[in-house]
Amino acid sequence: MSAELFRVVTPTDALSKIFDALESTIGDERVPLDDALFRITAAPVYASEQSPSFSRSAMDGFAVHAADTYGASDGLPSHMSVHGEVRMGRSVAEPLSSGTARLIHTGGMMPPGADAVVMVEHTQTIDERAIEVTRPVAPGENVIQAGEDLAVGDLILPAGWRVRPQDIGVLAAVGIRELVVTRRPVIGLLATGDEIVDRTSEPAAGQVRDVNTSVLSALITEIGAVPKPYGIAPDDRSALTRLASKALSTCDMLVITAGSSVSARDLTADVIGDLGMPGVLAHGLTVKPGKPTIGAVCNGKPVFGLPGNPVSAIVVYGLLVRPTICKLLGSSEEDTRPRIRARLRRNVASQSGRIDYVPVTLHEHDEELWAEPIFGKSNLIYTLVRAAGLATIPMDAGGQPEGALVDVELL
Amino acid sequence: MSAELFRVVTPTDALSKIFDALESTIGDERVPLDDALFRITAAPVYASEQSPSFSRSAMDGFAVHAADTYGASDGLPSHMSVHGEVRMGRSVAEPLSSGTARLIHTGGMMPPGADAVVMVEHTQTIDERAIEVTRPVAPGENVIQAGEDLAVGDLILPAGWRVRPQDIGVLAAVGIRELVVTRRPVIGLLATGDEIVDRTSEPAAGQVRDVNTSVLSALITEIGAVPKPYGIAPDDRSALTRLASKALSTCDMLVITAGSSVSARDLTADVIGDLGMPGVLAHGLTVKPGKPTIGAVCNGKPVFGLPGNPVSAIVVYGLLVRPTICKLLGSSEEDTRPRIRARLRRNVASQSGRIDYVPVTLHEHDEELWAEPIFGKSNLIYTLVRAAGLATIPMDAGGQPEGALVDVELL
Repeated sequence: MSAELFRVVTPTDALSKIFDALESTIGDERVPLDDALFRITAAPVYASEQSPSFSRSAMDGFAVHAADTYGASDGLPSHMSVHGEVRMGRSVAEPLSSGTARLIHTGGMMPPGADAVVMVEHTQTIDERAIEVTRPVAPGENVIQAGEDLAVGDLILPAGWRVRPQDIGVLAAVGIRELVVTRRPVIGLLATGDEIVDRTSEPAAGQVRDVNTSVLSALITEIGAVPKPYGIAPDDRSALTRLASKALSTCDMLVITAGSSVSARDLTADVIGDLGMPGVLAHGLTVKPGKPTIGAVCNGKPVFGLPGNPVSAIVVYGLLVRPTICKLLGSSEEDTRPRIRARLRRNVASQSGRIDYVPVTLHEHDEELWAEPIFGKSNLIYTLVRAAGLATIPMDAGGQPEGALVDVELL
Repeated sequence: MSAELFRVVTPTDALSKIFDALESTIGDERVPLDDALFRITAAPVYASEQSPSFSRSAMDGFAVHAADTYGASDGLPSHMSVHGEVRMGRSVAEPLSSGTARLIHTGGMMPPGADAVVMVEHTQTIDERAIEVTRPVAPGENVIQAGEDLAVGDLILPAGWRVRPQDIGVLAAVGIRELVVTRRPVIGLLATGDEIVDRTSEPAAGQVRDVNTSVLSALITEIGAVPKPYGIAPDDRSALTRLASKALSTCDMLVITAGSSVSARDLTADVIGDLGMPGVLAHGLTVKPGKPTIGAVCNGKPVFGLPGNPVSAIVVYGLLVRPTICKLLGSSEEDTRPRIRARLRRNVASQSGRIDYVPVTLHEHDEELWAEPIFGKSNLIYTLVRAAGLATIPMDAGGQPEGALVDVELL
């Protein structure tokens, strides 16, 4: 399939074509709650018990019949006899008689008959067996009713939810010990380029170490998928096709990073075109860096050809690969993450019809966040290490002036 | 040690007292590069080789002597004979003679003698052995010089740096295979409260499952430390002291979450006071929620007593525990994370002299981020699951009006 058949497309259009051609589900698995952190729920999670499971006091004070306190004031307090104490963690069987109060602590179980709690601050101790109440309470005051927070059958987490630390706490609270989450997709990684050698090699003159496999492995691990490196293929069509087919048959997605030469990139496109139907869906993105990108679906599985330059590869990972992994994971996270916005410290030029991603450093100044573009010839390492994020210069803006508010994706 | 000896302090003051009393270092360890993701560098990392290791072309085109192209134009092109091609990944020994050009690809090694690359777009092919150059190039143009990005001895990463995916790539590029990082601190977790039972138990009437151990374990894992749960201690001074001493002797930090009753909180303070010198440094924080917090250093190790309410525990974790873990890790991350700001959707009242942390949902609207406070009686689970972040209402503001810009910490 030749590149000439394709027009460059926006990342949004490329993703939409890819999503349309994907097979629907990746499957799910049951994991212990402790292993569910940052996994994605495969189905909605409902409460199988109510919370709290018993009516409890929200304050330190005295459980009472609210009616016994009506009209109480500092000048005319309600006199009540104290009948015992609610012990923490203990069930309370003995009902509270009218006219009496029982000492209760925050979280203590409400005695049968009691319908409110008077805060200790609104009582005066007469002796061990009597208090005066100086403010009235309404029925239900300072009480958390059984099931008030969660009734049986209430939705706790929707499907597609990334499980956060506090969600683990909620699930623990209602006795959930296992969670059904989507399976972690396995992402095959294949590097190409006759100049590329394994990162543990000592490169000869003219050779460079493979950087993208390490960067992509880390990014894929971070999002909750499993990277599976397949090494480095030479710029040879049959060798690359063989390795790519093998990887695609055992993985849920394949990401090929091309060498830096045009011929290596063309070869990648040809090989991806041969991997299965429908094949290449986008060849060339309206972005800089990252234009020489291939997006494909082969036999229902997503396949990407990423530019060899690591900064470009990181940009395209964020534009296409990560959203597609999230799609496989069934995660709605891509749409809900709040954007970080910053003001540009300098004018940034851009061509119309293209979205530019500019590496920036970030600084707080006058209560605002400022993004300082990192310019330079091709200082790859400097850029990768110093950049705190990528600022987006939108399409058709023809650039952005100093002071303009831009979206920044943290790196 | 009695609570009366202490005045409530700001989180900043509490942290400063704790940091002053800490032992200095936690030690470090050497890990393979693949395991270094999100670890903290224990020392600066310097380049032991230059990058790029050879001068290479930044473009597809022809390697030339720049002087041969001076004066070239569309009307008066420089005619040059083509002597071969630089193969990707191959060393080039044969020097380039004046008046000749050699085909070269992006990333190809510059031949000896050549000092510039003419982009292919600025050439016309005459035949297989000759081209016309239609634009002059200056010496060094379209060439990345050896060592231009990184010289031997250059700083790559400072100490205290959290290793990101792109940093792994940079380290891979220059052949670094291991990294010295700070050891992961082990954080002992102990729950107290007669009403608290293990999360895998079926609670009897009056009992509730332990939520904080699960939430804190997840938060601690997320930041790169190791949680070590020590179970649930009864509200009994000798039992709690025994468990706490045991935990502190084997861990780098101890976090006790108190039961909800006043007596459980008082007990926690007494026990922490007995664990070692200097003991309790802060008892009570000027924050809501989270006031009944204890900050201590015992025998050089930090010890915290957190409120039992999970929302309060999460707030205090962010204010005291996480910064202290970062301090142990030697991480500078706490100071460099960009703040997220949002506009309040409603008025929020606050008392002077207190910092309020308000659970909020977040929504994009008119290109701005808005924070909608989650109010309600004590809907713990609802709050924990629905909140996207905590908005800060600063001290002495007496609240914030609708539309005010506030800091939001994502949850």
